[in-house]
Amino acid sequence: MEGEKGLLIVLSGPSGVGKGTVRKAIFEQRDIKFEYSISVTSRKMRPGEVDGVDYFFKTREEFESMIKNDELLEYTEYVGNYYGTPVDYVQKTLNEGKDVFLEIEVEGAKQVRNKFPDGLFIFLIPPSLSELENRIKTRGTETDELIRNRMTVAKNELKMMNLYDYVVENDKVDNAVEKIKAIVVAEHCRRNRVEKRYRKILGVE
Amino acid sequence: MEGEKGLLIVLSGPSGVGKGTVRKAIFEQRDIKFEYSISVTSRKMRPGEVDGVDYFFKTREEFESMIKNDELLEYTEYVGNYYGTPVDYVQKTLNEGKDVFLEIEVEGAKQVRNKFPDGLFIFLIPPSLSELENRIKTRGTETDELIRNRMTVAKNELKMMNLYDYVVENDKVDNAVEKIKAIVVAEHCRRNRVEKRYRKILGVE
Repeated sequence: MEGEKGLLIVLSGPSGVGKGTVRKAIFEQRDIKFEYSISVTSRKMRPGEVDGVDYFFKTREEFESMIKNDELLEYTEYVGNYYGTPVDYVQKTLNEGKDVFLEIEVEGAKQVRNKFPDGLFIFLIPPSLSELENRIKTRGTETDELIRNRMTVAKNELKMMNLYDYVVENDKVDNAVEKIKAIVVAEHCRRNRVEKRYRKILGVE
Repeated sequence: MEGEKGLLIVLSGPSGVGKGTVRKAIFEQRDIKFEYSISVTSRKMRPGEVDGVDYFFKTREEFESMIKNDELLEYTEYVGNYYGTPVDYVQKTLNEGKDVFLEIEVEGAKQVRNKFPDGLFIFLIPPSLSELENRIKTRGTETDELIRNRMTVAKNELKMMNLYDYVVENDKVDNAVEKIKAIVVAEHCRRNRVEKRYRKILGVE
């Protein structure tokens, strides 16, 4: 594997689908070999969230200064808050040959796809639209208007499925986790990623 | 999944790489959801092999009559013996929505690729050429000349890596099995296979 760059793994999906829950469950697994890139956000901390663990929490002014200084791989403003990925950590970790895992919003994933076409893009979807609405409602931090707003946004986000390499149904968190783990293992065996190296090793260049 | 066809999974690789051993280990797993399509061959039964389990063993005359009657999905003559896949079982099983697993020679895999471009093609490789030679030797059923012959054929087969979707190194059987299982799970999540169905379910066509 000498000198080989790591794989950029991007998990995204519509608002409310449970990206954060699935990501947390993945990183509770013992046999995970990729590094999590913590996002930056200007949104308020939710109960149970920890600064520097769930997100780096910043003010709008701090976030806008990061944008100006080109310190973000991607960012998006979503329902009034900024979300973004610090570029430094991602580049450094990939260069060390380690896989990096991003859990980001759909708009940000689009930006990353342009910069890293070789990345591995996974789209998390709900079992149904009504189930998605339930999940947004039971989060309990949103007003009725915000829920309607989120559902409209989510439908538009679901349409962007075609930008992804894989689609994983989040029917149960454990199922989604198993599938995502399998996708990462499989992707490391994809012929276009490994052919050159193996031809060299086997002397059939 | 209503009405959906199964996935055709093709495991191939050079002579002596251990395709049969890996295939057997896969089918010893409990959580396997695909059906094994037993090949037909005109080669002699090896010690421990069972007719109708490892292969359907036929005479050359019987095999040639199957060719004439178009009863084979693919076939190849390899080091003096015929190997082939009965087409009936494969079509029937795929139409029932079940995945079918073929373990076949490289030449046959090429024929299947032409008939089933949507199939999932996995190429098993040895860790090195010298390790491949060891494996062919320790099989113990071949003369020195046959070993040299097989090594020449194997090198040419290795060059056909580019026809496959995935490359799996058979360093240890357990590792290869885990990777192949992951590849099948992942492939069922590939966007181009599932997008149409999910867009329908979610009403974002």
